[in-house]
Amino acid sequence: MTRTIVESRTKTAIIGFDQPFCVIGERINPTGRRKLAAELEAGDFSTVEADALAQVAAGATMLDVNAGVVYNSNPNPNETEPPLMRRMIELVQGLVDVPLSIDSSVPAALQAGLEAAAGRPLVNSVTGEEERLELVLPLVKKYDVPVVAISNDDTGISEDPDVRFAVAKKIVERAADFGIPAHDIVVDPLVMPIGAMATAGLQVFALVRRLREELGVNTTCGASNVSFGLPNRHAINAAFLPMAIASGMTSAIMNPTRPAEMDAIRAANLLMNNDAHGAAWIRANKPVLAEGEIAPGARANREGRRRRRTA
Amino acid sequence: MTRTIVESRTKTAIIGFDQPFCVIGERINPTGRRKLAAELEAGDFSTVEADALAQVAAGATMLDVNAGVVYNSNPNPNETEPPLMRRMIELVQGLVDVPLSIDSSVPAALQAGLEAAAGRPLVNSVTGEEERLELVLPLVKKYDVPVVAISNDDTGISEDPDVRFAVAKKIVERAADFGIPAHDIVVDPLVMPIGAMATAGLQVFALVRRLREELGVNTTCGASNVSFGLPNRHAINAAFLPMAIASGMTSAIMNPTRPAEMDAIRAANLLMNNDAHGAAWIRANKPVLAEGEIAPGARANREGRRRRRTA
Repeated sequence: MTRTIVESRTKTAIIGFDQPFCVIGERINPTGRRKLAAELEAGDFSTVEADALAQVAAGATMLDVNAGVVYNSNPNPNETEPPLMRRMIELVQGLVDVPLSIDSSVPAALQAGLEAAAGRPLVNSVTGEEERLELVLPLVKKYDVPVVAISNDDTGISEDPDVRFAVAKKIVERAADFGIPAHDIVVDPLVMPIGAMATAGLQVFALVRRLREELGVNTTCGASNVSFGLPNRHAINAAFLPMAIASGMTSAIMNPTRPAEMDAIRAANLLMNNDAHGAAWIRANKPVLAEGEIAPGARANREGRRRRRTA
Repeated sequence: MTRTIVESRTKTAIIGFDQPFCVIGERINPTGRRKLAAELEAGDFSTVEADALAQVAAGATMLDVNAGVVYNSNPNPNETEPPLMRRMIELVQGLVDVPLSIDSSVPAALQAGLEAAAGRPLVNSVTGEEERLELVLPLVKKYDVPVVAISNDDTGISEDPDVRFAVAKKIVERAADFGIPAHDIVVDPLVMPIGAMATAGLQVFALVRRLREELGVNTTCGASNVSFGLPNRHAINAAFLPMAIASGMTSAIMNPTRPAEMDAIRAANLLMNNDAHGAAWIRANKPVLAEGEIAPGARANREGRRRRRTA
């Protein structure tokens, strides 16, 4: 049974087929958040702190930390991102106890994050691009950490799922050459927006199943991409996640502070038999009754009797 | 590609792998609804009418009609159910134009419903019990209609999914003996309450996949059974349905007036590429903006930019 172990100083998270879905909080990321980017350049970490606490309170299993801000004072991320990543990792792991994901496309920032992080963080990410493979895999090996593998390569992101599978397979094989086992690779098969590509959902469900059955790897994705550009995005995400989980997906990089998505994941954990005795479900759904309201259990019993076939 | 055709006088519904999920409205059923049962005995059909209209307005593809009321004045359903079924079918098909499902365990009531129904109704149901097979399959053949096959037999409902698969297979084979093709059989693999059987979800997902791949049949279920006895049932149902759909389930007998479940099904249709151009999704989610609110599309664009990997 494939298990990817991620650790903070005090806490272990397991990504695996027989584990509750791993929710990797995506909020600590200045990409497209102009206000946060300006704060970081000014040395103000109050939003980072608030986002860390809020995501853990909402149930995040891990937190992704991305320091990819382009300073107005210095546009070279190779100079600015490593020290910022170090500082953000130190700050976040001082504040919350969940394991971290070090998210950067700048290898020196990954290195800085790995030096700063306690325990066994996740590296996010390597791709199938030659230069990235050669720069990131040695780091992953040196620090003995797991890594997210994104299934694009030097030719870009293929719309053909067979090509994306082949890229993932290549990364797993290259990692093996470095002595990195498949259970330390979490493949992101890339989720396209369903509004732009009608087969995007079917592609992911089929890819996740293949990645699990043929390569034996855990999987992740940027879940909210699927609903990009459409109305009522949270309802689409909240259906997509259980469907991906039923297909074998074991983690996602997402916003854990959205109740629709988190309810869907908790219910999916229950339905996949990854919530022993429904304890997590019941804890998260303690009935708060208004005066005169019927307890949900009582109502459930009445409804259950309506369909006699399994009575 | 398996297609089960169901028709009213004027409307066709197709149950199939490449079709939007078929929502069979379950509300017109006096089982466990004491008030409705009393109304029906008194000849009052106002709740039936209201339930028919509300379910179609909420998006039901078909309506199930069950006349299984035990009269205080006459406890013999073989006498009371056939005329009541006839009257209810006539009433409902005079009021709404969706195809109907004739739901009874009394063969004479199925016969009465079949005589009354216009078009090509669904018969709900046959089981693997010998007596039922011998009574129901000839009716199904005679009227050339599709039938729901419930995977229990004379030994009851097995907790072993392999046994339930074997019962479904037996029904499909017996039906073939009567000249009824597999595409006219919609198998209900039986959904157990997840609170009582932790593997209930995994069982259904695996069974649906097998039924589709090995027997080539459409599938259905009493969806809300899965959440029986647990708090926040609608959230469980709303995760279960997309997971079942991703596994290949093509219809469910359910309450279409619950928005959580219907949102989940519409999103699942979109994600399964069974909603051309997302037209149904967009129609069901037209933004209604409060003054000063940002249009969801605009917000979606901002959020989309946050994750740069697929930019």
